[in-house]
Amino acid sequence: MTAFRDDGHRAVDWAADYLERVADLPVLAQVKPGDIRARLPQSPPEQPEPFEAILRDLDEVLLPGVTHWQHPRFMAYFAVSASAPGILAELLAATLNSVGFLWRTAPASTELELLVCDWVAQLIGLPAGWHGHIEDTASTGTLAALIAARKATGRNVVVCSPHAHSAAHKAAQMLGMELRETEADGEYRMIPGSAELADAAVVVATVGTTSTASVDPLPEIAERCQAAGARLHVDAAYAGSAMVCPELRWAFEGIEHADSLVINPHKWMFTPMDCSLLWTSRPAEFRDAFSLVPEFLRTSDEGALNLSEYGPALGRRFRSLKLWAVLRCYGAEGLRQRIREAIRLAGLFESWVREEPGWEVCAPRHFSLVCFRKDGPDEENETLLDRVNAGGEIFISHTKLDGRYVLRLAIGNERTAEEDVRRAWDVLRDPG
Amino acid sequence: MTAFRDDGHRAVDWAADYLERVADLPVLAQVKPGDIRARLPQSPPEQPEPFEAILRDLDEVLLPGVTHWQHPRFMAYFAVSASAPGILAELLAATLNSVGFLWRTAPASTELELLVCDWVAQLIGLPAGWHGHIEDTASTGTLAALIAARKATGRNVVVCSPHAHSAAHKAAQMLGMELRETEADGEYRMIPGSAELADAAVVVATVGTTSTASVDPLPEIAERCQAAGARLHVDAAYAGSAMVCPELRWAFEGIEHADSLVINPHKWMFTPMDCSLLWTSRPAEFRDAFSLVPEFLRTSDEGALNLSEYGPALGRRFRSLKLWAVLRCYGAEGLRQRIREAIRLAGLFESWVREEPGWEVCAPRHFSLVCFRKDGPDEENETLLDRVNAGGEIFISHTKLDGRYVLRLAIGNERTAEEDVRRAWDVLRDPG
Repeated sequence: MTAFRDDGHRAVDWAADYLERVADLPVLAQVKPGDIRARLPQSPPEQPEPFEAILRDLDEVLLPGVTHWQHPRFMAYFAVSASAPGILAELLAATLNSVGFLWRTAPASTELELLVCDWVAQLIGLPAGWHGHIEDTASTGTLAALIAARKATGRNVVVCSPHAHSAAHKAAQMLGMELRETEADGEYRMIPGSAELADAAVVVATVGTTSTASVDPLPEIAERCQAAGARLHVDAAYAGSAMVCPELRWAFEGIEHADSLVINPHKWMFTPMDCSLLWTSRPAEFRDAFSLVPEFLRTSDEGALNLSEYGPALGRRFRSLKLWAVLRCYGAEGLRQRIREAIRLAGLFESWVREEPGWEVCAPRHFSLVCFRKDGPDEENETLLDRVNAGGEIFISHTKLDGRYVLRLAIGNERTAEEDVRRAWDVLRDPG
Repeated sequence: MTAFRDDGHRAVDWAADYLERVADLPVLAQVKPGDIRARLPQSPPEQPEPFEAILRDLDEVLLPGVTHWQHPRFMAYFAVSASAPGILAELLAATLNSVGFLWRTAPASTELELLVCDWVAQLIGLPAGWHGHIEDTASTGTLAALIAARKATGRNVVVCSPHAHSAAHKAAQMLGMELRETEADGEYRMIPGSAELADAAVVVATVGTTSTASVDPLPEIAERCQAAGARLHVDAAYAGSAMVCPELRWAFEGIEHADSLVINPHKWMFTPMDCSLLWTSRPAEFRDAFSLVPEFLRTSDEGALNLSEYGPALGRRFRSLKLWAVLRCYGAEGLRQRIREAIRLAGLFESWVREEPGWEVCAPRHFSLVCFRKDGPDEENETLLDRVNAGGEIFISHTKLDGRYVLRLAIGNERTAEEDVRRAWDVLRDPG
């Protein structure tokens, strides 16, 4: 264990140093496809190398090919943070190397997973008694919800708005289900028509869409689902974490009618990839869709609940450990503070855009995402995006709204300070 | 970063101490369902707690509920190891927190993932040019293979032997595909009949089945797949890693005809959960089944390959880092040595069972898994299993073969020494 201890302390120092200097690195990796691979040996070594060689090559070979998600000026897609307690809990989870396919193979992992899902349910105001577990990503959570809904309803149609995440389309494609899109209103929210829902297995509604963080009208959708006998799956992968703030709970009005819900602590709850929470108010339907216990997995543990019976995967990592560490080391109050600060910064940026002649805010802002563009043709905005990203000082992304090319700036990294947002605005106005 | 550095050094010391003392802990958690949860607060804290509280509760509250997969006398299911370089690389991956849904969001992660898959392909003797990427588990890899095969063939039938892993059944159930079982021979190998294959989308063959590590006859199966126009998916989740040893490659005869293949480095390649490699010789078919790039993910990176276009998930962790660290810090020679030692120990145990009156070896042994039982009724063997596992000195599992209850002892943890195997045999013969 001497080697482990020494190498471990080196690795921690590398990590601490990295987090201290990440703000000075270019956010978006300044390499071309193939560059990194070309610098690496094409075959594995025959003889062992010391762990220090890994740290050295991480610096010298890999780091130029890393897009720095931990950078305070990473403002693309949805910005995320792997916090200190989350990172260190991953070290602990890897050390224990629990594989939770049955309760008995990982009792602590199984029971802590159920507990932290209940903790988060309380923090975001879900009804009591829902069954929550952890999946890798919201793509998997949505896939699972579709599978359970198809099994329970015997129907094969998925309904979502044009602004739903592509994960819904991909899941439908993988499962061979038909996907129907509803109309959307001027604020990018679903308009559920009864026609689409008639024979739907499930409607995927979104609280915090990817393009604009718009919020679908859950009460109305829920009512129509109920009338049509369809399940309601809510994708709150990004905005769900914000529900820790009571003043934002308007976005969850009607959530009690959902049949399933996905929220990603790896998006906005300071937890490293991957950690996506999937709740269902119909655990029996999930069990019916996913339970399958072969002889070699039968045990004599009475009253034990196996999480592999509630989702696609059999083997499961000890993912709850990192979320437990984050929830405890931040506390409910710490989470609320950070969410509010990100929203304050986004509001500030939005106000600058709004006040600046020649710039436009393109969608209502509810959380920490601002959709905006420079007056002028799409090509100019696209060129601007490429230029600021190539500069390495900030990294933002884009979408299309009503056929127009629109820039997206998302706040979510816990290191992001007002000066970073100010710098982003400076760079956007004068990309040099 | 002071807190991160200090807490990090504490976490590394905790991990090093744990690995030093794990052999002295009871292998199977000695708790009842609900015990662990009952010791934890039912609500999250309002105010932040220090990271040391996590380490304290890990020891005092969680550890009694941990089944120790890192224990040298964990011999249940398939025994695994999270090696030192693998564990520390997980810390680094969590620190970088790369999210690889597009090449540009994680160039190093994307390119290293392709590279390590090629490295392993070389180590286990796969044909050049296959496309490999990393999934969380073999369940997902098999699910992906079924999806791609259904899309490519337009057929809806999966064929496997009665000894295939339940993941094939579960994937078929999730996808609404029909599953047909072939016959098996006296050594638990698939007998592929042309009847089942007639309209099959895919045949799932296994190299190293879960119950007995039997090896399906790939050349014959491949020939029949070709004739029937079915895809051939090979599940070598456990035994695939052993192919680093040329003397074991007989088990991979015909592998060049596979359309897809899954191998779990988190099983027998000293890599922490989760790391499952999925190769395909038909990347275009996978891309056709999984590629779906919405506007907000379109980029201007020419020649860039997005791994999310080859499997179910969009978001992807930097999983290749740990496998890269293991491959380099062990070297090809180090991997071979450890595989051979595990097989030697299993052979030793098998010889003791064989020589002992009143005991029986129940299946041919090819790798590091021994199937055996005590003469007498099933109930006696079941009681024996419960008794030795409850003792905490060893942890083994069971299966059913030809209707009989059979014990399984699997060697795979890198800490397992001859004295551990000897102790297991002593405990089994005299459980006290």
